Amino acid sequence: MRRQSAHIAHRMADIEPFHVMDLLARAQALEATGRNIVHMEIGEPDFVTPAPIREAAKQALDAGKTHYTPAVGLPALREAISGFYQTEYGASVAPERIVVTPGASGALLLALGVLVNPGEQVLMADPGYPCNRHFARLLEAEALGVPVGPESDYQLTPALLEQHWTTDTIAALLASPSNPTGTVIGADKLADMHSIAAKRGGRLIVDEIYHGLIYDGIANSAVCVSDELFVINSFSKYFCMTGWRLGWLVAPADYVREADKLAQNIFLAASTLSQHAALAAFTPESREILNGYRDDFRQRRDFLLPALRELGFDIPIAPAGAFYLYADCSQFTDDSYAFALDVLEKAGVAITPGRDFGANQPERYLRFAYTTSLARLEEGVDRLAAYLRSA
Amino acid sequence: MRRQSAHIAHRMADIEPFHVMDLLARAQALEATGRNIVHMEIGEPDFVTPAPIREAAKQALDAGKTHYTPAVGLPALREAISGFYQTEYGASVAPERIVVTPGASGALLLALGVLVNPGEQVLMADPGYPCNRHFARLLEAEALGVPVGPESDYQLTPALLEQHWTTDTIAALLASPSNPTGTVIGADKLADMHSIAAKRGGRLIVDEIYHGLIYDGIANSAVCVSDELFVINSFSKYFCMTGWRLGWLVAPADYVREADKLAQNIFLAASTLSQHAALAAFTPESREILNGYRDDFRQRRDFLLPALRELGFDIPIAPAGAFYLYADCSQFTDDSYAFALDVLEKAGVAITPGRDFGANQPERYLRFAYTTSLARLEEGVDRLAAYLRSA
Repeated sequence: MRRQSAHIAHRMADIEPFHVMDLLARAQALEATGRNIVHMEIGEPDFVTPAPIREAAKQALDAGKTHYTPAVGLPALREAISGFYQTEYGASVAPERIVVTPGASGALLLALGVLVNPGEQVLMADPGYPCNRHFARLLEAEALGVPVGPESDYQLTPALLEQHWTTDTIAALLASPSNPTGTVIGADKLADMHSIAAKRGGRLIVDEIYHGLIYDGIANSAVCVSDELFVINSFSKYFCMTGWRLGWLVAPADYVREADKLAQNIFLAASTLSQHAALAAFTPESREILNGYRDDFRQRRDFLLPALRELGFDIPIAPAGAFYLYADCSQFTDDSYAFALDVLEKAGVAITPGRDFGANQPERYLRFAYTTSLARLEEGVDRLAAYLRSA
Repeated sequence: MRRQSAHIAHRMADIEPFHVMDLLARAQALEATGRNIVHMEIGEPDFVTPAPIREAAKQALDAGKTHYTPAVGLPALREAISGFYQTEYGASVAPERIVVTPGASGALLLALGVLVNPGEQVLMADPGYPCNRHFARLLEAEALGVPVGPESDYQLTPALLEQHWTTDTIAALLASPSNPTGTVIGADKLADMHSIAAKRGGRLIVDEIYHGLIYDGIANSAVCVSDELFVINSFSKYFCMTGWRLGWLVAPADYVREADKLAQNIFLAASTLSQHAALAAFTPESREILNGYRDDFRQRRDFLLPALRELGFDIPIAPAGAFYLYADCSQFTDDSYAFALDVLEKAGVAITPGRDFGANQPERYLRFAYTTSLARLEEGVDRLAAYLRSA
């Protein structure tokens, strides 16, 4: 049959795949030949969802809970999330402001969808989570990556916001803890940035999907700063529920009806089963298991950070959260992508190259994820050491 | 705390909520006071997901399958869907062309996302599924609703495509069976419309989410017409899996890589658990249950269609599929929305007013859904009869 020439929308030329996928495919090909690979490239917890959460899903299945929920989520789950803000942060967040979404991805699409017009700008840190700018692109808005480095803990700052905010800017997207750097934003800086945005008629959107995985200091949620900013969260990381595709948005009151409308139309609702399961994520039993996993992550960080520094990787900021180390590898290479491929081939260690996180010197950086056991991390470090000695 | 004035994106002024939600809220309020309401407004099967599918989910939970899948879906599920096209339609659809998505909503967003530029037009039938035009709006494209009526079975036709296609048109969205009318498009007409679109460098996007729920004649899938059009399907309707949020896109080969890229960025993947459950949807055991439900729907249609006609509703086309009857109520009212509210208040029957389905004389129409038992449908008809007698 004749192949029709493909008219592909212009946006797709700007929407990049995850470059690590090529590396992952190569890792899997090597594994298929019997090679053993240490995976330090994977952005999801290695832990299976805790049994009490899975058990709740099974009970929902037995009870026949397989129909749609309201677009904004089960009332009981919105209540539970509200309660979580109260117990964790002492914050009062009305359940009515909480919109349950298909993953944090769904929450970000809703936040940008109700807020940002075509041509308007959203400031975001570079390096940052790669998908963020593509959501803006989908809406014909402009994601303006602001280069950040160790001098600001790889985060946007009040000064950077003032410097880069223009009349076209409508929002700044912050991530605390950040992917790929694991750094957090202090409460004072967050409040200052909120004031700067508010004065200019703009909003902060604060990605807190790695909340719960914070190892140093006190975690502050942006919900404590103001009711007038957007907060995105997820059951994926701390709650170890990646495959369930469940997150939430805390929206300013004036935007809730709009977010509901948009969710009705483009999602209908998040997975019913995932929502019923998530109700069990806040029980003491589940929290105890999850906090144990968090302690494991801390232990891994406390091993991997000094070990990589010892090998010569430059990690000037000790990340307080998430499960990533963003390492400057310019001592070894001026092309982190080629380096990552070579390390995979020769040492059997998979690492994500910087180019997946933006345009700010990606060739200098690698992201190490400690989403595998301490024993495997030790093995990975040994292999890297041997590789660097022989290089 | 001072409420900041809300900057709401312009698109939100064009994105409408489901008007039936207001009616549903009123129905629930009445039920809370003890009133009994016959629900004929609900667009999802009343049947719980068959036990073998729920059992497969439980096995996946026990096996700890809670991590992300590839963005395009589990390979085994893409294979199973490909096999389904072979057994149901004798069609060869390469698994590589099948992208598993979070509901048909996700599939439509991918199809439009890879295909349609801002300002380009997508033709669609009016009346039609209300969300469709909002997906186009989200992408800053134009959904052009083409008024259709009983003379074309409420469907677009080759002649209508030729008449409305402009240099800005890039796609036509068809739905067979259609929501809200339940009518199907014949294979010849579909082939003609594909030729018309292809000659103009455009594409058909064919929504087949009600496939499997076809009661008369032979079901033809658009995949049999050409490899060069997009087909959207879902596990929600025939497979009774609404709350699982699982669908799929069959894309022309040249668009698969683009759809994968977009899915990676905006969804990550569909629910892992839903995908494992869906693997059990194609077994003989599940199919037997599902075909029993389909026969129940047929029986309901065969009761409700003549019963509503008997009452004086004008339903010129006997719908061959889905679970809807789109009824002209202009004999009783010139405002179907007010009529639906009055019927709810006085007769305790909930029906969806036409305004949820477009701008083509919505005030003349009501959509009756036969997603409740035959006994309840009989009760609903009795109540309507009494209401109309007393009106």
